[in-house]
Amino acid sequence: MNGVSHQDVFGADPWLTIGDRSFTSRLLLGVEQYTNPQIIGQVLRAASADVFITTYDLDNTRSSLLLSDVDGEIDLSRYTWIGTTSFARSPEAAVETAVQLRDKLDLDIIKLDVRSSDNLPDAEGTILAAKQLIGGGFTILPLVLPDVTTVLALQELGCVAVRLMGSPVGAHRGLADPTAVKDCIDALTIPSVVEGGIGSPAHVVQAMELGADAVLVNTMIAKAEQPAVMAQAVYQGLLAGGLAARARNGGTH
Amino acid sequence: MNGVSHQDVFGADPWLTIGDRSFTSRLLLGVEQYTNPQIIGQVLRAASADVFITTYDLDNTRSSLLLSDVDGEIDLSRYTWIGTTSFARSPEAAVETAVQLRDKLDLDIIKLDVRSSDNLPDAEGTILAAKQLIGGGFTILPLVLPDVTTVLALQELGCVAVRLMGSPVGAHRGLADPTAVKDCIDALTIPSVVEGGIGSPAHVVQAMELGADAVLVNTMIAKAEQPAVMAQAVYQGLLAGGLAARARNGGTH
Repeated sequence: MNGVSHQDVFGADPWLTIGDRSFTSRLLLGVEQYTNPQIIGQVLRAASADVFITTYDLDNTRSSLLLSDVDGEIDLSRYTWIGTTSFARSPEAAVETAVQLRDKLDLDIIKLDVRSSDNLPDAEGTILAAKQLIGGGFTILPLVLPDVTTVLALQELGCVAVRLMGSPVGAHRGLADPTAVKDCIDALTIPSVVEGGIGSPAHVVQAMELGADAVLVNTMIAKAEQPAVMAQAVYQGLLAGGLAARARNGGTH
Repeated sequence: MNGVSHQDVFGADPWLTIGDRSFTSRLLLGVEQYTNPQIIGQVLRAASADVFITTYDLDNTRSSLLLSDVDGEIDLSRYTWIGTTSFARSPEAAVETAVQLRDKLDLDIIKLDVRSSDNLPDAEGTILAAKQLIGGGFTILPLVLPDVTTVLALQELGCVAVRLMGSPVGAHRGLADPTAVKDCIDALTIPSVVEGGIGSPAHVVQAMELGADAVLVNTMIAKAEQPAVMAQAVYQGLLAGGLAARARNGGTH
């Protein structure tokens, strides 16, 4: 019974479909922190990721790595490309980044981050930017702290999924408030992604057991001594969490 | 990179060898709680277990299931058989159970449990029983709370491995004191097994990340709606934890 596959655990259907683009892998990887395109290819493959997340640096202060050099390492045409505003510190910067991502890279699915100065999601700014971007024809996956009122407001605005912050990015503390995360997952009818603070595959297991549709992992893999091995570890944790949720629920799934 | 195997993660060598018997799977399953022999076969296979743990009921108040009916369900000759004293509530009862297991089933490798009335391991009673049994030619794997002095005393007595209780059996609280568990693992030169309180594959990941050689899981699988699926989940968690430990350490392993 070894060698359980993603499809064995989660089935073959996408957890999110946007037009002709679909998200099937329950593991999303941020790759903004990498400086080596070869490692990006390794981790995306090890994690069986099918989404490639890129960004546009408004200030041109960061390497243009993601927009060029990666191309030689992996077949990016096999990935669903989405943009991220992860460097934005205001709703205006987030909206401007999204516009640049659409103008320059033809991306209109946006992983929306609006963080305040303490690097936590700014709920009000996120709602403001989401409203403006959805009005402008973008498809939005916003990141917020797990607060039921906030996530329902974002669902009401037309966001296609909500990303729930487990604990502050880079903190590796796992889920600071598992009950709040679960309450949001249960309140939403759109898919939930857990992200932020994931410092061990154990936290990935926990998020999937709570009922998350997917997890987004970034720093833990990027900063590991061996990123591709950690990506595999996270992937195995994903399967473990999905199986555990099914084992508790009974039924055939 | 899907389909990582136990051997990919942990290598092919046993983590414990006793005479001509070897323990290669890092996942040990207690099966004393099952009443259905078919399910025992399913969970042992799903977990890729290679050790079969059985016991002898001094009072004959429990079903003799494990000693007979299971035989038709799985090829028990492929497993390393060990005995357990998990029903013992005193050092005397533990020693007597071990003697019966040797006399009746020819088992001399004993998973030694001596619990006090609150179901926690009795350190003093465990040391006493271990000393007596080792003197009598048994091979002993005792269960204790994670206390460095206690585990070093057991190592000094000649125990071949120590089982560290994560949190009270059946509590599902994971590792109550991860630092104490890690201190014991680091202090010991013999293998460490983490057991007790494991209520999610996330706890299995955590134990393996701390450097445990193996985990022993019981109630979480036995009480799941679908035990075989939970056994698979735990197995995936085991791989995740082993990979994460390697990813952090760097090197080739």
